Amino acid sequence: MSNLELEKLSLEEVLDKEVSETSGEFVNRLIYGRKLEKLDIPKLDENTCEVAGWRMGGAKAEQLRPPRIVRVGLIQNSIVLPTDAPIAEQRAAIHKKISGYIDHAAKCGVNIVCMQEAWTMPFAFCTREKYPWSEFAEEAVDGPTTELLSNLARKHNMVIVSSILERDGVNGDTVWNTAVVIGPDGKVIGKHRKNHIPRVGDFNESTYYMEGNTGHPVFETPYGKIAINICYGRHHPLNWLMFGINGAEIVFNPSATVGNLSEPLWPIEARNAAIANSYYTCAINRVGIEKFPNEFTSGDGKPSHREFGQFYGSSYVAAPDGARTRGLNRHMDGLLVAELDLNLCRQTKDVWGFRMTQRLDMYAKEITAASQSDFKPQVVGK
Amino acid sequence: MSNLELEKLSLEEVLDKEVSETSGEFVNRLIYGRKLEKLDIPKLDENTCEVAGWRMGGAKAEQLRPPRIVRVGLIQNSIVLPTDAPIAEQRAAIHKKISGYIDHAAKCGVNIVCMQEAWTMPFAFCTREKYPWSEFAEEAVDGPTTELLSNLARKHNMVIVSSILERDGVNGDTVWNTAVVIGPDGKVIGKHRKNHIPRVGDFNESTYYMEGNTGHPVFETPYGKIAINICYGRHHPLNWLMFGINGAEIVFNPSATVGNLSEPLWPIEARNAAIANSYYTCAINRVGIEKFPNEFTSGDGKPSHREFGQFYGSSYVAAPDGARTRGLNRHMDGLLVAELDLNLCRQTKDVWGFRMTQRLDMYAKEITAASQSDFKPQVVGK
Repeated sequence: MSNLELEKLSLEEVLDKEVSETSGEFVNRLIYGRKLEKLDIPKLDENTCEVAGWRMGGAKAEQLRPPRIVRVGLIQNSIVLPTDAPIAEQRAAIHKKISGYIDHAAKCGVNIVCMQEAWTMPFAFCTREKYPWSEFAEEAVDGPTTELLSNLARKHNMVIVSSILERDGVNGDTVWNTAVVIGPDGKVIGKHRKNHIPRVGDFNESTYYMEGNTGHPVFETPYGKIAINICYGRHHPLNWLMFGINGAEIVFNPSATVGNLSEPLWPIEARNAAIANSYYTCAINRVGIEKFPNEFTSGDGKPSHREFGQFYGSSYVAAPDGARTRGLNRHMDGLLVAELDLNLCRQTKDVWGFRMTQRLDMYAKEITAASQSDFKPQVVGK
Repeated sequence: MSNLELEKLSLEEVLDKEVSETSGEFVNRLIYGRKLEKLDIPKLDENTCEVAGWRMGGAKAEQLRPPRIVRVGLIQNSIVLPTDAPIAEQRAAIHKKISGYIDHAAKCGVNIVCMQEAWTMPFAFCTREKYPWSEFAEEAVDGPTTELLSNLARKHNMVIVSSILERDGVNGDTVWNTAVVIGPDGKVIGKHRKNHIPRVGDFNESTYYMEGNTGHPVFETPYGKIAINICYGRHHPLNWLMFGINGAEIVFNPSATVGNLSEPLWPIEARNAAIANSYYTCAINRVGIEKFPNEFTSGDGKPSHREFGQFYGSSYVAAPDGARTRGLNRHMDGLLVAELDLNLCRQTKDVWGFRMTQRLDMYAKEITAASQSDFKPQVVGK
């Protein structure tokens, strides 16, 4: 197998091929935790969109609460048209492709679907150009994307989480990185704006939008309490923590990330958040290589170029007890369906007790002190 | 290979045997991050104590700061005598074995060594018996273990981190779970008491000691600023966070943990902490099966028994950029040596910016609110 062929594979595909059946279960347990059962769900064309489904399991039957079974759908996708096509056409083409995937998610029994970060557009922030890319920004409640999804949500009785570039017309045409939550009646339940903005490599996002001002909302839906930690926010344990404290049972992490820098971190962060906060996490990354019309530089002696690098997909779901699904593939579209029992959240809190042993009062004092400009760290031995 | 033989292996040993050379680098990168170089260090008897060494690498040369190279040593070990031997003899036997490992660590150029949690004793908290186990508790500064280690620290010009059961004679003979930090001059730099105490399964630790009252101290040593997050504290991102905010460059996590419940979490939590806080983490777990004189129950319909289960070792070091060493083995003593360049901590902060984008002021307010008994979570859509 050549290196290029290898780069298309996922870790899971390599292990499946090369690890023996005897060792397979052992390796699986150490990497992914409990063994999960495959869901019997319809497929799409295997050469264009992988469909995978897992029953997360792990919850016990309770006497006083029935199980609360929910199916989530995670969609990872490449863009459709070249980035120099007219904006309206680029967006329409992505709208069309994702509508098809949402229809398919409905056939898989999905109750809540979430797409990747800024799913209606190429991830153009590497260019540092404001035009034409800012034209992808749209109103959260009345924009064309929310209109499209409202219809789909109603049609399928689904909750849809849509991570877009938001144009805030009420506040001086400000641009935000925003997730819109649409209920099964097609109405917008609310929105959340990305709390932490990267200034890393080609992720020049602070050029385009500022830190969010919506706090850490948890959205009450018919399918559980959900929250959204957008992309770079997954590196911030405090961000995950506050969604947990506000009562989230599922936290989606719509992302767009590339290459060697972040790939070893990818399986760690959202999964750790699931463990630490006793909720489910759904990490979604886009796929493919996006080429831009004008060349841009990335510093560090690299020649100027037009490509952002490979978005490596690998979307996955992690459970409160640390079990996780395998990742979707690294190079093409995918729909990952996971069946959750929300009762596992409270059950895990009861088993591990992380919330009860959290000592928030101590940290409230320490973090308040640390946030002052005259903060003196607790150092011993100087 | 039988299941029993398999259970003795580590994930790394299985992958080495079964994954081809071509795929090996790819699998290694996705599981462990950057490729690390092996250190050329002396071995011990391979049938009783594994010795492994890695150069963590990854730091760039700076113009204004020379590299700050430090070698850490992590010791995982089984107990020596049966748990019904006289307490003094049990402790003396462990003292003797570990003294040998520390001598060997010195030969490997180790500057800071850390043992597992409560390393001088069997992990007897599963029994819920106060005697004879409480007799293992000793004064942090003037106890026999600190005396032994002071001599070794001076002899080898080493910093030693020693996680013991502390008897606090000044405060009414209180018992604590404490890490003592000894400087290369043999003097105690300070101590830290475990902040978060488990009430999980057979970890009946809250029966023996209370939540620590020492905050989140960082100890200034000749080999960098270090802190200790004791065992169950690794499940608490806030605990890791405050050590980072107080300036730690290396955080040791002396632990004692068993079985399926925690093993899938083990590679995630300390590594996530290294990433989120831009410091090195050193996770150390004991090994072996400890059998107690009296039977005890574990509930959930399990028959009463005398064994705590397998402590699975697998000690490892993680770097601020997410790279990690392979784990030590799962069933016998081991010394893991890792060479770190402390400059990588600040370099990683500069690259990723997690500290600068942390928004502590926002979280100070939110966590303060959340710690009040009349807290109202931020829920939308009710």
